[in-house]
Amino acid sequence: MELFYANPANIHAQEIVCDDFERKHILQAMRKTKGDKMLVTDGRGNVFETKLLEQKPQLRLGIIARRNVPAQPLQLCLAIGFIRPRRLDFVLEKGTELGVNFFALIRSEYANYSSDNLSRFEKITRQAIKQSRRYYLPGVEVFADSHVFLEQSTGYDLKIAAIDSRRELLLRQLKKLEFNSFNSLCLLIGPEGGFSGQEIVDIEQHGFLPVSLGNNRLRAETAAISAVSVIQQYMQN
Amino acid sequence: MELFYANPANIHAQEIVCDDFERKHILQAMRKTKGDKMLVTDGRGNVFETKLLEQKPQLRLGIIARRNVPAQPLQLCLAIGFIRPRRLDFVLEKGTELGVNFFALIRSEYANYSSDNLSRFEKITRQAIKQSRRYYLPGVEVFADSHVFLEQSTGYDLKIAAIDSRRELLLRQLKKLEFNSFNSLCLLIGPEGGFSGQEIVDIEQHGFLPVSLGNNRLRAETAAISAVSVIQQYMQN
Repeated sequence: MELFYANPANIHAQEIVCDDFERKHILQAMRKTKGDKMLVTDGRGNVFETKLLEQKPQLRLGIIARRNVPAQPLQLCLAIGFIRPRRLDFVLEKGTELGVNFFALIRSEYANYSSDNLSRFEKITRQAIKQSRRYYLPGVEVFADSHVFLEQSTGYDLKIAAIDSRRELLLRQLKKLEFNSFNSLCLLIGPEGGFSGQEIVDIEQHGFLPVSLGNNRLRAETAAISAVSVIQQYMQN
Repeated sequence: MELFYANPANIHAQEIVCDDFERKHILQAMRKTKGDKMLVTDGRGNVFETKLLEQKPQLRLGIIARRNVPAQPLQLCLAIGFIRPRRLDFVLEKGTELGVNFFALIRSEYANYSSDNLSRFEKITRQAIKQSRRYYLPGVEVFADSHVFLEQSTGYDLKIAAIDSRRELLLRQLKKLEFNSFNSLCLLIGPEGGFSGQEIVDIEQHGFLPVSLGNNRLRAETAAISAVSVIQQYMQN
């Protein structure tokens, strides 16, 4: 059964009302009709088995059953300086597939682009959770500069910044830390062009451990997805 | 100094003649003029320090110095069933950044698209080696079906297929194999929809070790890049 998404505010005791974005996906792309069954998640770990009741004036789905899927053990934040839209979309889509729970998008000093179109970002993360059958919709937040982000980055068990190719390799660092015992991790990636000298001082002062992603010179979005892949694989190992 | 690419056939004893694609990049995008210095690679490990001699009728660069950069110790083949162009481009670009040496694109049974536009593929890999300052241009080859590919896949020290989420996790499998001692690896990834039952039998009969990429349900292109990231990080570890 295909999986769709509904905002928790639109999920009532016995039925779900779909918003326009989901309506299009269900009726036009997937060509569902009255009586068809489908799964719906609220993006907070709840999954509803539903049946299509009515297409107009609102797309309404009747709730047949519900269950809760526990969150994955690691809460993973991916923080990244703004990069160009196509590349940022890629980070949001692939990061969501790979289990990122929260994206922090930072207007860092050398970032050559920025946007606070959160509804656009949500469209991408929504599509990605449906595609990869995840039941938790990642949060996305835009930060005015690195400092604002760093001040709010307390509370993670581990903070890692892929900012220095001369440092210990990420995988080796994870082993050293016996990282499996951590519950939350914040991974910070620079924009194209990296962070400024002052930003790097600030990042280290806020307790981020600098690591290397190896000998390859990677674009920011590749570095982000590559590091998340290594972390997820290491965690499940 | 920026890095550009020239086909070995266009590299002579004392000068390099650029093709149209590179000419545009050098003159229009990078706005180089007579006397400017730049690096050029032949995509086979040779790097030339050059000076722009003439823009018309041909873009000619004079060779000032040359050196050879050794290949990375692991020769890595990424074999993948055809996926849609935007997603395939992504695999070629990111795979090249991450050090893939050879891409095998397979018209597998469930592949919903195929192309043999090799010159388009080469434009992507070219741009990626320049961007990531690699000196080896990966090869790209299209295979008519899985069997043709499998018959030609002998000669790798290790062959891995990410086709079964119930199998050992890739990272754990690499550890067990003491993989650092291998010189060449072929990694096989299914298209969207995976391989057919018959293809899977054939893959295993040809000595590919089935592995899992973990609990996440990944799109084909994400699986490819995620697995390559883990392999590269493990190799450098």
